[in-house]
Amino acid sequence: MERKVKILGTGKYLPKQQVTAEELEKKLRLPPGWVAKKSGVRVRHFVTDETSAKMGAIAAQRALEDAGLSFSDVDCLVCASGTSQQEIPCTAALIQEEMRQSKSGVPCFDINSTCLSFVTAMDVLSASLAMGCYQRILIVSTEISSVGLNWGQKESCVLFGDGAAAVVIGRTPEAETSRILASRMQTYSDGAHYSEIRGGGTLIHPGEYAKGREADFQFDMDGRKIFRLTSQLITGFVERLLDAASITRQEIGLVVPHQASGMAMRIMGNKLGFAGSHMMNIIENHGNVIAASIPMALHEAIVQKRVNRGDIMLLLGTSAGLSLGGLLLEY
Amino acid sequence: MERKVKILGTGKYLPKQQVTAEELEKKLRLPPGWVAKKSGVRVRHFVTDETSAKMGAIAAQRALEDAGLSFSDVDCLVCASGTSQQEIPCTAALIQEEMRQSKSGVPCFDINSTCLSFVTAMDVLSASLAMGCYQRILIVSTEISSVGLNWGQKESCVLFGDGAAAVVIGRTPEAETSRILASRMQTYSDGAHYSEIRGGGTLIHPGEYAKGREADFQFDMDGRKIFRLTSQLITGFVERLLDAASITRQEIGLVVPHQASGMAMRIMGNKLGFAGSHMMNIIENHGNVIAASIPMALHEAIVQKRVNRGDIMLLLGTSAGLSLGGLLLEY
Repeated sequence: MERKVKILGTGKYLPKQQVTAEELEKKLRLPPGWVAKKSGVRVRHFVTDETSAKMGAIAAQRALEDAGLSFSDVDCLVCASGTSQQEIPCTAALIQEEMRQSKSGVPCFDINSTCLSFVTAMDVLSASLAMGCYQRILIVSTEISSVGLNWGQKESCVLFGDGAAAVVIGRTPEAETSRILASRMQTYSDGAHYSEIRGGGTLIHPGEYAKGREADFQFDMDGRKIFRLTSQLITGFVERLLDAASITRQEIGLVVPHQASGMAMRIMGNKLGFAGSHMMNIIENHGNVIAASIPMALHEAIVQKRVNRGDIMLLLGTSAGLSLGGLLLEY
Repeated sequence: MERKVKILGTGKYLPKQQVTAEELEKKLRLPPGWVAKKSGVRVRHFVTDETSAKMGAIAAQRALEDAGLSFSDVDCLVCASGTSQQEIPCTAALIQEEMRQSKSGVPCFDINSTCLSFVTAMDVLSASLAMGCYQRILIVSTEISSVGLNWGQKESCVLFGDGAAAVVIGRTPEAETSRILASRMQTYSDGAHYSEIRGGGTLIHPGEYAKGREADFQFDMDGRKIFRLTSQLITGFVERLLDAASITRQEIGLVVPHQASGMAMRIMGNKLGFAGSHMMNIIENHGNVIAASIPMALHEAIVQKRVNRGDIMLLLGTSAGLSLGGLLLEY
């Protein structure tokens, strides 16, 4: 299961428009302090003129620059997002277009496991890299959550932000030790409807929107049920992942969790025995950016030097599905 | 790039409701014979009470039975479709739920490159199998095109059908020779808008549907432009794929093309030098079923004994993006 794959560069993009907790409290007529206390989010960013592809293209360009590479050095572009820009084609092709690489021929496709899309893409594509199918892969997570929030559902609508993050991965040079140690994903569709947007696909066509079904096209979350199911599963899940790599908790330098909510990360850290100082937390000024949360937190961990080459990191999260996903890597 | 992966079983599901060329000619006030002549489709199937997940679950169950396996024998479930059932969660989780395996924990995620989704999934996941990340993977393509057709766009709306197909893949036993010889994908986003559904994602939210933008939520295709771009690229694309595997055209027992249209397959076969007898063509009674077309044609090729163990097959298609994709395998 070990794969000699290295993170070569990372980048992120946040929309220009900032929306503060105070603004949301006014909009939703909530008491001062409610939003930050409930969600842990003081500022999130919402798109104005940005599109999913535009944000993804900028984050991707920044990741390439960080890696000292240009677009011609990558031979695969994967969009790993929970939302898409259009129904057809895949968002990766629209990112390629936005990067002005529309004649490059670089293969483009999407991988989607909602909030875990980036972890799934890293997992699956590291196998393709290790097998020699590709040399260097650009993975881009770009999310616009603001368009699909239900402003009547206070607990969920104050959590989310928009933005993008990108990572370039490649095979590890012979003399280096960067690698994926182990990965694990589990889906329990008992929780398939604990967080969902029911509309927009083949089940409830957009044509139904105007027929009193607006709420079907907005994000719907039962935080309590998600919490209950996740709590039952997470400890055993992480134990089995660590066992697969023969790694102890103490050897993990940094956990990069999905930025589900301030409270969710705190409880997860306590339950798993990871101190706050070992948990990368960027929710305060980003919000939950769906699949972009983990690569964004990874980017910040690298930029802020919370992680150094040789350190062992655990990417860990839950997503709609309901899924748990984790990936242990040596940076 | 070679991967010792074997197709263990296949299955398909077609909706109960059949729609004939004659019925469409009446509905669209077209002269008798127009639909079959333009599209090559005499009968396609449209859903009545079937959902994407239901169709996918039935096809998946049939593929497992064909392989002599049960759900507990697979450790990954991937939905490889161009359309999704809901915006959130991924369709694979909904298929797991429909299969009554909601406590199984089997990881579920989606891979999307529109009509090439199945080929991309086979390509990417065969690397995961070969690396030992999984033992057996269920790949399901399930499509409902009928909900998103533009009945004012005669050339495109008469092409499509609904349905699902599934394939179980696993590592090839030591003594056998089944394998993926080579794969290739190229995306040219110059053609990103030659076939699209602009709405339904983050760019044009379903809330816009009722504001005179219905057409943005329907499939829009410029067949002429797709044909022109594809024609320029396809010969070189296939040559390079064959070169990568050191295979000649003559060694290919059967081409399983995307069932884009009767005419597209005829022209592609002629251009590439594959006789009609070497092209698996099921469009007459299935239509273009988006990503389900290739695994459905593969299933029919196996059932009709057009392919035998040891034969070399070429899965080949184009998709929105615009992408070309091909996979050479020994069945």
